[in-house]
Amino acid sequence: MRGVVLHAPGDVRVEERADPAILAPTDAVIRLSATCVCGSDLWPYRGIERVERPSPMGHEYVGVVAAVGDEVRTVRPGQFVVGSFFASDNTCEICRAGYQSSCVDREPIGAFGSQAELLRVPLADGTLVATPDVPPDDLVPSFLAASDVLGTGWFGAVAAEVGPSKTVAVVGDGAVGLLGVLAARQLGADRIIAMSRHEPRQKLATEYGATDIVTERGDEGVARVKDLTDGLGAHSVIEAVGTQEAMMQAVRSTRPGGHVGFVGVSHGVELPGQELFFSHVHLHGGPAPVRRFLPELIDLIWNRRIDPGRVFDLELPLDRAAEGYAAMDDRSAIKTLLTV
Amino acid sequence: MRGVVLHAPGDVRVEERADPAILAPTDAVIRLSATCVCGSDLWPYRGIERVERPSPMGHEYVGVVAAVGDEVRTVRPGQFVVGSFFASDNTCEICRAGYQSSCVDREPIGAFGSQAELLRVPLADGTLVATPDVPPDDLVPSFLAASDVLGTGWFGAVAAEVGPSKTVAVVGDGAVGLLGVLAARQLGADRIIAMSRHEPRQKLATEYGATDIVTERGDEGVARVKDLTDGLGAHSVIEAVGTQEAMMQAVRSTRPGGHVGFVGVSHGVELPGQELFFSHVHLHGGPAPVRRFLPELIDLIWNRRIDPGRVFDLELPLDRAAEGYAAMDDRSAIKTLLTV
Repeated sequence: MRGVVLHAPGDVRVEERADPAILAPTDAVIRLSATCVCGSDLWPYRGIERVERPSPMGHEYVGVVAAVGDEVRTVRPGQFVVGSFFASDNTCEICRAGYQSSCVDREPIGAFGSQAELLRVPLADGTLVATPDVPPDDLVPSFLAASDVLGTGWFGAVAAEVGPSKTVAVVGDGAVGLLGVLAARQLGADRIIAMSRHEPRQKLATEYGATDIVTERGDEGVARVKDLTDGLGAHSVIEAVGTQEAMMQAVRSTRPGGHVGFVGVSHGVELPGQELFFSHVHLHGGPAPVRRFLPELIDLIWNRRIDPGRVFDLELPLDRAAEGYAAMDDRSAIKTLLTV
Repeated sequence: MRGVVLHAPGDVRVEERADPAILAPTDAVIRLSATCVCGSDLWPYRGIERVERPSPMGHEYVGVVAAVGDEVRTVRPGQFVVGSFFASDNTCEICRAGYQSSCVDREPIGAFGSQAELLRVPLADGTLVATPDVPPDDLVPSFLAASDVLGTGWFGAVAAEVGPSKTVAVVGDGAVGLLGVLAARQLGADRIIAMSRHEPRQKLATEYGATDIVTERGDEGVARVKDLTDGLGAHSVIEAVGTQEAMMQAVRSTRPGGHVGFVGVSHGVELPGQELFFSHVHLHGGPAPVRRFLPELIDLIWNRRIDPGRVFDLELPLDRAAEGYAAMDDRSAIKTLLTV
């Protein structure tokens, strides 16, 4: 099969890779309908994360089940499925508490590389959720978004305890931040402040439900959020970047007793304990337990209640993956979908 | 009046200070029945916090109202009252959300110094809660504990979302940690692991409801908590120290999706963002909004359902405050009560 392999920072190649096979009776192999490039793929692409050896890339996926192991019960060949970027048994105590991405048996899908024609998914029963039927093509991008960025933005909103009568601020205008706006709207937020300085992203944020746009960053951004909230700060803040500046902006934009949901993969962030202590915020986040939300998200997409696929503003065939990485790297694209 | 003044690290004196007076119509002045030395008083005593000038000390207090300003409505002279270490209006949006120690009008009681015969309390209506009647002497230590250490341990347990069927670990065996154990028991925890290596404190922890004692610290302490929780970690962990080691011990002892309630005043702590991200814990804490809990705590003490005053294992007259500081500094006393 063809698949994306990162050889060194900036060196994205599409190569012949071995077809995956069923290795364990709980495995499934799926034939991908679409995959995509994640903001977190840019860390090694930019050389911020070390590239030790040529690495298969990608952890987001939707597709049709091609084969299943003997013990797989909940999905069958021919079904269209969405899965999370961590395989999970969905039965352990951690999964049952809703933290499937910390499942005691978890396996990162990224190790297999979903930017490819075929993908082996371990623990298929606990990882994959089938759609009611094979979806029409125009819904495929939205289901693909559910595999990571939508689930991650949604988790950010849930972790930030977004709800009715609350004011929410969203730090970060990448796909996750934009879908954090969408999630906040769905979860009933009263007011949604999107922090963005890029016009096309501001526009999509507004269409997804943002009521206010703040273009300032850092301390100035914090001051603007305070201005908009009687000097108190937002009830809920979604952090969808993962840098020191974004994290501090999120903490400082939150009122005492409020909640920060942080879903940007933290790179080199150090949280000052004393400031956190006196901030009185709640802090929760991490790799999104997408599996927790998939049934609900699939239902919303299937019934065309939400349209998260709009974050894909560049669509390329798998063979042109390198262009897709470059466009996200220079921020000319929000998110690249790769057709397979 | 007589009052404690810290002149330099280790230099505790009891001196003549000006009697406080009603300055604002919302003030009360109370005649203290008892006061005490806080773990946080040891930071300047030990020179870890700078002592810029001679400073009145103390922020914990119970006593009888001596005078009130014209606008005070909820307490009157002659009543026995308990207050928090932050004065609060108890009417602003932050107070109504339960975060009185971040009240928009808050004033730190420590600035006035409660280790004295008299104390001015601003915002008396929002800060003080009267007991049903003047209590018998044997209940005074417990009401005094409610002013800070009990309220702080209680907030640690609430912030850690302690509740029925949960396993709780408590890092720190000072008065706050011990009362975190008491709070966890009251809030219905199934199992309470006290982390302590001091025999008299282990004993009190057990009497307050600890079911397990772990003497190891750091990584070994974490491993012991994991051993006791099927390898997963505790559901709820109360951090009642405030050092880097204690904070990391708390985070690492918590299962994914679990809650850390941190109430040790953070000194020099830096939380690694990436570890926090992948830990999947909830983190919440800060200066306890004691006022939120006072009505319930006063009721529990008045009806002799809890006995938090037992954390005072040294009682001295105010004039011997220096001995009380020294005993807490060398850990020969858990907490010193000063009779006034």
